[in-house]
Amino acid sequence: MRKLYLVLLAIAIFAGGMAVNELLTKSDLFTAAKVLGLDFLDDDEVELMLEDVQEQTETLEKLGKIEIDNDISPALVFNPVLRPSQLPASSIVSAPASAPNALESELNTPLEWASVKQLGAMLKSGKTTSRKLTEFYLDRIKEHDPTLHCIITITEERALAKADEMDRELAAGTYRGPLHGIPYGAKDLLAAKGYKTTWGAKPYENQTIDVDASVIEQLDAAGAILVAKTTLGALAWGDVWYGEMTRNPWDTTQGSSGSSAGSASAVAAGLVPFAIGTETLGSIVSPSTVCGTTGLRPTFGRVSRYGAMALSWTMDKIGPITRSAEDAGVVLAAIANYDERDAHAIRAGFQYEWPQAPAQGTRIGYYQSVMDGDYPFHDQDSIVLKTLRGLGYELVPLELPDDPDIGFILSVEAAAAFDALTRSNNDDQLTRQIRNAWPNTFRTAHFVPAVAYVQANRLRRQLMQDMDAMLTEANVDVYVNPSWHSNSLFITNMTGHPAICIPNGMNEEGTPTSITFTGKLFGEQEIIDVAHAYQQATKWDDIHPEAF
Amino acid sequence: MRKLYLVLLAIAIFAGGMAVNELLTKSDLFTAAKVLGLDFLDDDEVELMLEDVQEQTETLEKLGKIEIDNDISPALVFNPVLRPSQLPASSIVSAPASAPNALESELNTPLEWASVKQLGAMLKSGKTTSRKLTEFYLDRIKEHDPTLHCIITITEERALAKADEMDRELAAGTYRGPLHGIPYGAKDLLAAKGYKTTWGAKPYENQTIDVDASVIEQLDAAGAILVAKTTLGALAWGDVWYGEMTRNPWDTTQGSSGSSAGSASAVAAGLVPFAIGTETLGSIVSPSTVCGTTGLRPTFGRVSRYGAMALSWTMDKIGPITRSAEDAGVVLAAIANYDERDAHAIRAGFQYEWPQAPAQGTRIGYYQSVMDGDYPFHDQDSIVLKTLRGLGYELVPLELPDDPDIGFILSVEAAAAFDALTRSNNDDQLTRQIRNAWPNTFRTAHFVPAVAYVQANRLRRQLMQDMDAMLTEANVDVYVNPSWHSNSLFITNMTGHPAICIPNGMNEEGTPTSITFTGKLFGEQEIIDVAHAYQQATKWDDIHPEAF
Repeated sequence: MRKLYLVLLAIAIFAGGMAVNELLTKSDLFTAAKVLGLDFLDDDEVELMLEDVQEQTETLEKLGKIEIDNDISPALVFNPVLRPSQLPASSIVSAPASAPNALESELNTPLEWASVKQLGAMLKSGKTTSRKLTEFYLDRIKEHDPTLHCIITITEERALAKADEMDRELAAGTYRGPLHGIPYGAKDLLAAKGYKTTWGAKPYENQTIDVDASVIEQLDAAGAILVAKTTLGALAWGDVWYGEMTRNPWDTTQGSSGSSAGSASAVAAGLVPFAIGTETLGSIVSPSTVCGTTGLRPTFGRVSRYGAMALSWTMDKIGPITRSAEDAGVVLAAIANYDERDAHAIRAGFQYEWPQAPAQGTRIGYYQSVMDGDYPFHDQDSIVLKTLRGLGYELVPLELPDDPDIGFILSVEAAAAFDALTRSNNDDQLTRQIRNAWPNTFRTAHFVPAVAYVQANRLRRQLMQDMDAMLTEANVDVYVNPSWHSNSLFITNMTGHPAICIPNGMNEEGTPTSITFTGKLFGEQEIIDVAHAYQQATKWDDIHPEAF
Repeated sequence: MRKLYLVLLAIAIFAGGMAVNELLTKSDLFTAAKVLGLDFLDDDEVELMLEDVQEQTETLEKLGKIEIDNDISPALVFNPVLRPSQLPASSIVSAPASAPNALESELNTPLEWASVKQLGAMLKSGKTTSRKLTEFYLDRIKEHDPTLHCIITITEERALAKADEMDRELAAGTYRGPLHGIPYGAKDLLAAKGYKTTWGAKPYENQTIDVDASVIEQLDAAGAILVAKTTLGALAWGDVWYGEMTRNPWDTTQGSSGSSAGSASAVAAGLVPFAIGTETLGSIVSPSTVCGTTGLRPTFGRVSRYGAMALSWTMDKIGPITRSAEDAGVVLAAIANYDERDAHAIRAGFQYEWPQAPAQGTRIGYYQSVMDGDYPFHDQDSIVLKTLRGLGYELVPLELPDDPDIGFILSVEAAAAFDALTRSNNDDQLTRQIRNAWPNTFRTAHFVPAVAYVQANRLRRQLMQDMDAMLTEANVDVYVNPSWHSNSLFITNMTGHPAICIPNGMNEEGTPTSITFTGKLFGEQEIIDVAHAYQQATKWDDIHPEAF
């Protein structure tokens, strides 16, 4: 009789849609608690919750079977702004009306190393055409990509058509501004109509997403010419994509770092005047460092991610990779228009002015306890402080807050973004299967409890408050920090503060080193101004890899 | 040798700050995976991730030891608005300049049942004073609270001082608007200077939070008089607080439901003209239903929660409980001012006008498949549809989208908000320890993975899009739905749509039933207008429990 009852119970449960084959036991819950780092349960409590956890597990299993498009973001958004009343009052975004007249010497810079600003002056003065520039860069890409592996798709047809259109417009007297007619590359996690969007990863190598990403749409409107979709480490990690490893133009035996691998490599090798990269946690700064490019990571929410692969909705940022700070500002001014298709977008003004060196006596912070200590490239960084002092700025010591151990926010969101990939085991197709690669990281992130994710995001708000208080107290708009060797990169990627990373020397291996200027929320002009002053005073932005 | 190696390894790990006593095994991970509803792992994968999960577990254990104040919200915020460009253009919040002149008959309504509007007219015309009204309600509270258990703290000193101040102001010709001099009660999860804030729960029964919650500050500015802090089910669930069960004035052997238990009970019994409640998932609608009050749950983000207990940051809403729809609007207009101290607050206009019946022919939706079916109080609800048709409105059938199984969003956030309570075992002090109560629900929620929480919030965005499309398609500003017996309550608490719940009949036990009008985001005026037209045409808002 008792046995029959159990059978009936089992049938009833099975008929009720139970997906697990086994009922959970108290011992199971204690084991799970150990894995999840939960140490507060006693036997009676586990007894009481057993049935609820069982039901919850069934709910979770059903939820796991639902596939959600990568472009559906969570209902929760990250907003870095603590005091909305202090946002830039205007929401107008604009570039300088035109490239300024360039010096004759500048107009004779070899095309491959000419800045966006110089190219703009050449185009406007009729010294060249968009068609000529486009063909020039397409040729360079075809020549050097077999060495660098920095391009996934050459968008030649779209590029030539657009270049001709821009030339016709200019001939007819219509000038769209300083990017009119200028070629560029875009990281291949940005969708572009008519071409595939591979996210650098084997399972997506034939994916097409038939929209123009917001940044591509905006650059199109600004008159720029998309000539290539650049490589990225698969799903935005590292420099290994499904085809190859992207190479550093300064030493093609080495990788370019990533994940904006191709964007930095192509700009450094003079294959495009500028490119678009993205950063979640270092993906603009890291390849810009090793390739010697200028990388601008804007304030979180400044640039719409519509049409971009989502890795971490609350951390992903899109920004320019260029060969100078002033160029980075011009590109940012083209892509910073508010776009409500990205639920995280924030309406904020950015009326970019060609950079001016800050006035003498301007206070600039530096991360004292780190920069006074010993770390790789300390010497190069020290010279930066000396140079800035030499330019008449007051260097003010400051200390960043402690960083809480909340890095799993990124891996949890990425694991959600690629949940279906993990559950289908199609992640086996990714090239890198080591411990320190996405497939393993995604799986591991599935063992973070939701409560911990919420708590981590509360510590993140405390961190935002701490950073805000520190910057207010220090009374600086900009501070200097090592690009890599401190917690500034981690903290500011969590808090959404903007940063610009520029080359500041060479290491013993003959590849570049970099320094970073970090700013207040929506304070990109100020970090560009300081970076520009530094670049005017030094040569590191003017040297290029000899092989290209 | 092998044994020595293991010993050394163990020491190395221990020295490295290991907090767990035991290393995790592959079997542990498989068991945890079963509990978390993860079915995609194979043996090699678990082998590869073992060390990472071990490290992650240690991180989680450390995180669990950090206490975070209840007022630190996550860095992620819920924003219900899909198209910010369609927010109300003005951000001005205003009430009608004054209570309109009341009819002589209205001025003779017994004080205990007089509406806010009537009391305003009496005060303005000099028929009474704030002092007299305040003493009147304080007396009623003292007389009836021993029966109803609806008040935690009488704020007599603050009330009398404020009443005298309001009388002096009025005598001097300063009139703050329709709430000038009018007493009210506030749910005891809102902080008020000078008094304790108990959250209805034993572990917090002596807690003081030395600020005025934003809504209390705003009501103060509008001239209203805080006379009492009303009960709530412990930590905002049900009607059982640490002292007693709050009673329904219509049948004092029964509970008032909750969690805004005391607010609804006190308003229904005429102990205050209005009160402030909160709703996360039914906590205004449910007690308003059984007590026969009018409950307005505003759009998520409309009313600042600064100084309010956080239960679920992405779902908590604050709203008025009154005896008429028109009063609910007046109160909302006082508390809807933008306040950036609540990171979830949204700046949106609300220029409240005394309600006018919508024009004949106005389209009003109704949830057809539910309301044509069989459910408790179907008959009362049918009469509402008939009444609305009789008033000349076009009743338009519509269907709500399916609701995804994402209710754990609430329990996860609540478990985070009270993480320290759970981990310290101080949750043992809560009165209710059954399966269906907070302590067990919090513990259970600790077994939801973070990835599932993120995925649930992506399904939540899809739900927002589905609701938006449905309302656009139906072309209505308002729809009618059963207050309780459909998925509308769940969906709209997830999507942040506003709703007003009003009495529409009596059940067999002699206690009230209710109907709900749900509106578009920030469309409170429209639901108030329809509810007002219904209340003008019917008597359900005019009858009161005889014992009071």
